[in-house]
Amino acid sequence: MPRRERERQIVDVAVQVFAKRGYHGASVDEIAELAGISKPMVYLYLDSKEGLFLTCLRREADRLVGAFQGAATAGGATPELRLYAGLLAFFAFVAEHRDSWVVLHRQASELSEAIAAAVAEARVAVMAEVAGLVRAGIAEAGPAAQLSDEDADFVAHALVGAADSLTDWMARHPGQSPEGVTLRLMNMVWVGMGRVLEGEAWKPATG
Amino acid sequence: MPRRERERQIVDVAVQVFAKRGYHGASVDEIAELAGISKPMVYLYLDSKEGLFLTCLRREADRLVGAFQGAATAGGATPELRLYAGLLAFFAFVAEHRDSWVVLHRQASELSEAIAAAVAEARVAVMAEVAGLVRAGIAEAGPAAQLSDEDADFVAHALVGAADSLTDWMARHPGQSPEGVTLRLMNMVWVGMGRVLEGEAWKPATG
Repeated sequence: MPRRERERQIVDVAVQVFAKRGYHGASVDEIAELAGISKPMVYLYLDSKEGLFLTCLRREADRLVGAFQGAATAGGATPELRLYAGLLAFFAFVAEHRDSWVVLHRQASELSEAIAAAVAEARVAVMAEVAGLVRAGIAEAGPAAQLSDEDADFVAHALVGAADSLTDWMARHPGQSPEGVTLRLMNMVWVGMGRVLEGEAWKPATG
Repeated sequence: MPRRERERQIVDVAVQVFAKRGYHGASVDEIAELAGISKPMVYLYLDSKEGLFLTCLRREADRLVGAFQGAATAGGATPELRLYAGLLAFFAFVAEHRDSWVVLHRQASELSEAIAAAVAEARVAVMAEVAGLVRAGIAEAGPAAQLSDEDADFVAHALVGAADSLTDWMARHPGQSPEGVTLRLMNMVWVGMGRVLEGEAWKPATG
């Protein structure tokens, strides 16, 4: 079997084992056994347990970012439709690849600086993509909108954080489709943005 | 010095040291020295390094949840104003207590199950509070709104996730006040909810 193929196979198994057992609970023995190769071979291909986790995380993060970007690029004629397509691809990915989401999201933050950096990198990539779509939406609304790049970055942070947190909601409501989740989020956020673009401003005094 | 007072002092110092050095980098020696007591005394009061971290985390989480709840309860005549007051208290807390936020947020997730559980508990408390305010807002809008408890829970997840993520944005824009951040978020989300309550629905086909 070619090296690349063998590595893919090890990583496939490792993602499942890390998701199931957690980083600390996962053993390279189990990964080797399920992949049908010897433990020294796993180390030969992928260095250390941390190296293996990092490879899993990078691959899954690339897939997730790629899914978002691919869908957003192909997604439609307006920034709004591209954002919808990107968010839909994100929720569909998380629904389908629960294992890889667990690896990316639940386990990565404090394991090591290299791992935290890989997660931060994926988040920055999605954030930049979302901020670009929001900027494009603002630009289409014309100069009356008076929103800056800082505003677009604000909206991107809010959207990415909301989407992240909504994966928990989705896990608690397994009957909900990715489409349903995306539509609700667009309703909450984009419709609100539309009003803001039209100059409506919420103030606490207006109660 | 009474035990309670001594513990408070140790925890104050420990929060700073954990925030500065990270959990793994923090040493109980340094905490003891800065608190002006011996290392065995720290262990006597607070068990272990993990026990100390957990005590820090629980205290800071209680403060944060308390700040949100206190402000929301006192915050005004409508669910909308109470939500605003709660969010404002959250962002003000994070801006003022950067150290405790780092301990709560950046370091806690993979250290141990007890620690992850303490963080999850704080998040659930804030989430329930927010969901309650959203439900009250929906109820005020009357039966025409046709939104369920599931919707309220959805909005709460989105809001809490957005607020979480926006603390990064705030760190990158130190000139922005907590008031400014809260107003932007209310504009994005509550104004959007207002339209949804009035029956406007975003659909991808409408572009």
